[in-house]
Amino acid sequence: MTSHTEQSAVTVLGLGPMGRALAGAFLDAGMRTTVWNRTPGKERELAERGAVGAPSPEEAVGASDLTVVCVVNYDAVDTILRRGAVTDALKGRTIVNLTADTPDRARDTAAWAAEHGIRYLDGAIMTPTSTIGTPAGVFLHSGPEELYREHRPVLDVLGGTHTHLGEDIGRAAAYDIALLDIFWTAMAGYAHALAVARAEGVSARELAPFAKGIGVILPPLFEMGADDVDSGLFSGEDNPITSAVSSMAHIVHTAESHGIDASVMRAAEGLARRAIGRGHGTDGFLRITEIMNPR
Amino acid sequence: MTSHTEQSAVTVLGLGPMGRALAGAFLDAGMRTTVWNRTPGKERELAERGAVGAPSPEEAVGASDLTVVCVVNYDAVDTILRRGAVTDALKGRTIVNLTADTPDRARDTAAWAAEHGIRYLDGAIMTPTSTIGTPAGVFLHSGPEELYREHRPVLDVLGGTHTHLGEDIGRAAAYDIALLDIFWTAMAGYAHALAVARAEGVSARELAPFAKGIGVILPPLFEMGADDVDSGLFSGEDNPITSAVSSMAHIVHTAESHGIDASVMRAAEGLARRAIGRGHGTDGFLRITEIMNPR
Repeated sequence: MTSHTEQSAVTVLGLGPMGRALAGAFLDAGMRTTVWNRTPGKERELAERGAVGAPSPEEAVGASDLTVVCVVNYDAVDTILRRGAVTDALKGRTIVNLTADTPDRARDTAAWAAEHGIRYLDGAIMTPTSTIGTPAGVFLHSGPEELYREHRPVLDVLGGTHTHLGEDIGRAAAYDIALLDIFWTAMAGYAHALAVARAEGVSARELAPFAKGIGVILPPLFEMGADDVDSGLFSGEDNPITSAVSSMAHIVHTAESHGIDASVMRAAEGLARRAIGRGHGTDGFLRITEIMNPR
Repeated sequence: MTSHTEQSAVTVLGLGPMGRALAGAFLDAGMRTTVWNRTPGKERELAERGAVGAPSPEEAVGASDLTVVCVVNYDAVDTILRRGAVTDALKGRTIVNLTADTPDRARDTAAWAAEHGIRYLDGAIMTPTSTIGTPAGVFLHSGPEELYREHRPVLDVLGGTHTHLGEDIGRAAAYDIALLDIFWTAMAGYAHALAVARAEGVSARELAPFAKGIGVILPPLFEMGADDVDSGLFSGEDNPITSAVSSMAHIVHTAESHGIDASVMRAAEGLARRAIGRGHGTDGFLRITEIMNPR
């Protein structure tokens, strides 16, 4: 019975939109959910749904065997957890840290946790708040596999797909960083395309159906490109990097002829030109993965 | 009978991979196909399939009412077409220029054509050579609608989807530029993500399934973002630009901690920070479309 009680209790630190969504999913599953947020007031709606609002982070983490942390970044994590009373209250308990930051910070937090007898898993949430508690959520985890297995039933309450990426605690953050890199770079490209289109008298609404078509061709190209990069062979047979640079120069020229900033595309073009300068002009565009990395 | 003969004859200038694919589709449809390329030899395989290799561009364009041009850029177009004999031979005939370049160059070429009594359509091919003659091809066209309608039966021989974007001759190139902007920026993001992932011990093959997941969420976000940009309202409710900048800073930090160039992301981050500096921190990321454009 004790183990059941422990398993069905969880603490959530951080009640931003994502933290509230996580706590809401635990409540929906009937779990005893304790919540705390740095600035008070965010717990009100959750309290109405049955959450226990703890008056301090030490009391919050003391209420459950498992604490899920989701705050703005690891500076905020440190401010909350690395205080005597909270660190002491966490001893022997488990943290699942779903805060987004860098792999380095995840490793540093794991080292601190180990030093204080705190069990630690790191994770990343790849999908918006609206996906929490639904099949659409995507969660990445890293850290000790046994610990992950132990808490997997609680994590499953959040819905979606959970993947344990390995014991290296930085791995979830590494995937997170890489995937956000694709996402935000692509969004920057879309924003720029819309700016150029508008200057040419083409509305976003007019461009959107074709833009979606570009989005649709990316996943299979990502798949094919993965083999190129892992093998170090960059087949440019139908689309050599010289063609890419020709298109990029047209894009920069058109943008700048309208006074539109082209710094993102100029940077990408610069990498491609460096690849050509090093004799890789007939290779595929993904050769730039090696140009970016001096090692 | 004459009109039938004329309609079923076409000339293709430029026999790179795309030009050869176009000529091949015309031949497959049983059209009388005349071909020419600046450097000889490229026509050999097409000649075996029934193409007529013209000894000069003036003889090539004189052989058909419709000439399709597909060369490396408009400098190459000008070198071929803007010579007395070729210009003269084109008088009263139609050019469909499927060469990729900027909207400005399309307008300049149309002006030259009008001056010499040459009928002119501009176009862009959005899909790889392998899609030519198949339902997967995507062709954009702009210029006089009547002229487009007249030659549409020949263009349909190339398969795929043909869209006439309007009478402004630069419109196909404008769409082309904007769509390639999305494409190459996204690919630069993927290349960078793979470089960062590798430095963190994550192979391209391991990242690819998740990268594809990012690709899949882009089209609906492109759709939603179009309304934001056209309306000038940039809803950042669930994902404000301040969150984007936080992720971008993590990406730059992680990349540079491994000695990996982060110039593309640094440029995107700079635009987002400018938007925040101008008081748009709670807006959505696409607010940067307005930051890029000083007007």
